[in-house]
Amino acid sequence: MTFQSAGSSTFASDIDTAAAAVRRQARTGALTGPTAGMAKGYVQVNLVILPARDAAGFLRFCQANPKPCPLLAVGEPGERSCAPLGGDLDIATDVPEYRVYRNGALDGTRHDVSDLWQDDLVTFALGCSFSFEHALSQYGLPVRHIDQGRNVPMYRTSIPLVSAGGFGGTMVVSMRPFRAADAIRAVQITTRFPQAHGAPVHLGDPSLIGVEQLDAPEYGDAVTVADDELPVFWACGVTSQQVLLDAGVGFAITHSPGHMLVTDILESQVALL
Amino acid sequence: MTFQSAGSSTFASDIDTAAAAVRRQARTGALTGPTAGMAKGYVQVNLVILPARDAAGFLRFCQANPKPCPLLAVGEPGERSCAPLGGDLDIATDVPEYRVYRNGALDGTRHDVSDLWQDDLVTFALGCSFSFEHALSQYGLPVRHIDQGRNVPMYRTSIPLVSAGGFGGTMVVSMRPFRAADAIRAVQITTRFPQAHGAPVHLGDPSLIGVEQLDAPEYGDAVTVADDELPVFWACGVTSQQVLLDAGVGFAITHSPGHMLVTDILESQVALL
Repeated sequence: MTFQSAGSSTFASDIDTAAAAVRRQARTGALTGPTAGMAKGYVQVNLVILPARDAAGFLRFCQANPKPCPLLAVGEPGERSCAPLGGDLDIATDVPEYRVYRNGALDGTRHDVSDLWQDDLVTFALGCSFSFEHALSQYGLPVRHIDQGRNVPMYRTSIPLVSAGGFGGTMVVSMRPFRAADAIRAVQITTRFPQAHGAPVHLGDPSLIGVEQLDAPEYGDAVTVADDELPVFWACGVTSQQVLLDAGVGFAITHSPGHMLVTDILESQVALL
Repeated sequence: MTFQSAGSSTFASDIDTAAAAVRRQARTGALTGPTAGMAKGYVQVNLVILPARDAAGFLRFCQANPKPCPLLAVGEPGERSCAPLGGDLDIATDVPEYRVYRNGALDGTRHDVSDLWQDDLVTFALGCSFSFEHALSQYGLPVRHIDQGRNVPMYRTSIPLVSAGGFGGTMVVSMRPFRAADAIRAVQITTRFPQAHGAPVHLGDPSLIGVEQLDAPEYGDAVTVADDELPVFWACGVTSQQVLLDAGVGFAITHSPGHMLVTDILESQVALL
């Protein structure tokens, strides 16, 4: 696999990290729930696993749509390790919960996909907003869905994706409300993380991106938006699962939302500054 | 004078710049109008000139309020040259139009203040939004008041200033409307220019900062704001003139709005990145 770093290309996989401990817990079945807040400081990633026949097109799609689908690493066909993401790492066992898709529809969840592994499966690791949410918190900005103990609200939009490799459609976004001065600060902070969706794609009036009801997200949970706050929208990794569904791919494995692969890459390593 | 650079501390005053040519035109009386668009690429500055008795307090005020009053240079008492801002530069003649204030009120405009010069006058050079407006245009963002051939609209707000040195009050802001995606880009671009007011201080609902009527700015001209645009507000150098008026200073000289001192400092030299 190749790791496309914004900065340094070294990482911590040669030591036994807190991230490796989380992966082992998932591998043994001790951890089957969401990974939010685990191994703080380490990058967590979205996974998409596709047969080689679909992988080449999906790679072109990701390269053409880096805001929703920031590629951190792409595997060789059949490869279950992923050295650039971490040592002691098994793509087929180290995610707490996987989703299996067949013929464009969800076909169940699993905690281990070893028995589904094939020699032609290609793994894509895509950046995740957890990285910038930690940064927002560190800079003193309140992240509403965390404060309210909910999943981040996500919405289908009218923002067109660049069609490539047989995939396309419209973007899925996540939303975090902020007062204007904090929204401006959030733009600055998340700009530092292009590999975790980067700066927002929209703020203010939701209807301008085709979102009619803020209190009815397509994915995740609704959160409170105060009268003096702006909804701020970021490109979301769920876009990748949506385009797989829309394309009706024959077979795919992804992580379950919130149940991420925890890597040995430090968040500071994927920050621009 | 000391020049507080964001990056390099060298500048182009040892060569005869396009900026120096503009200054000489102002000095001879050939130029008496606004300087917008002149000597592109060179930093233009707001000037505030105060007797030493008020200058010490005003310096503390600027240091405490860097968003509206970003200090590029401060002169020694009586000094009419300003080497850090440029060679061949005379503070008392090189601005196309000056304003003279007496006892907290405007007491006329002049094209030359040599006859008013005193041995205890201290010059403050404050960054100006022209620097980031050029950057916005270079990145392809339309600047409405330029496109409409107007002065930028400016508003008094309820945003409190930090009181210091006998000066205080509320911030004056300038406004430029953008569609959301461009507003996000504008935050990124203007963040690069902390010495030209930097990132916006507000965007969206004007009433949240005490601005009730967008079409009735206190200074400058109203501009069109489309239904799908957000008003984006930046701290404005006019704040400095407002606090001088509010404090009722006995004597002060400033530039007239839009009639700036053109320096030999390159805009690229005051950019963070």
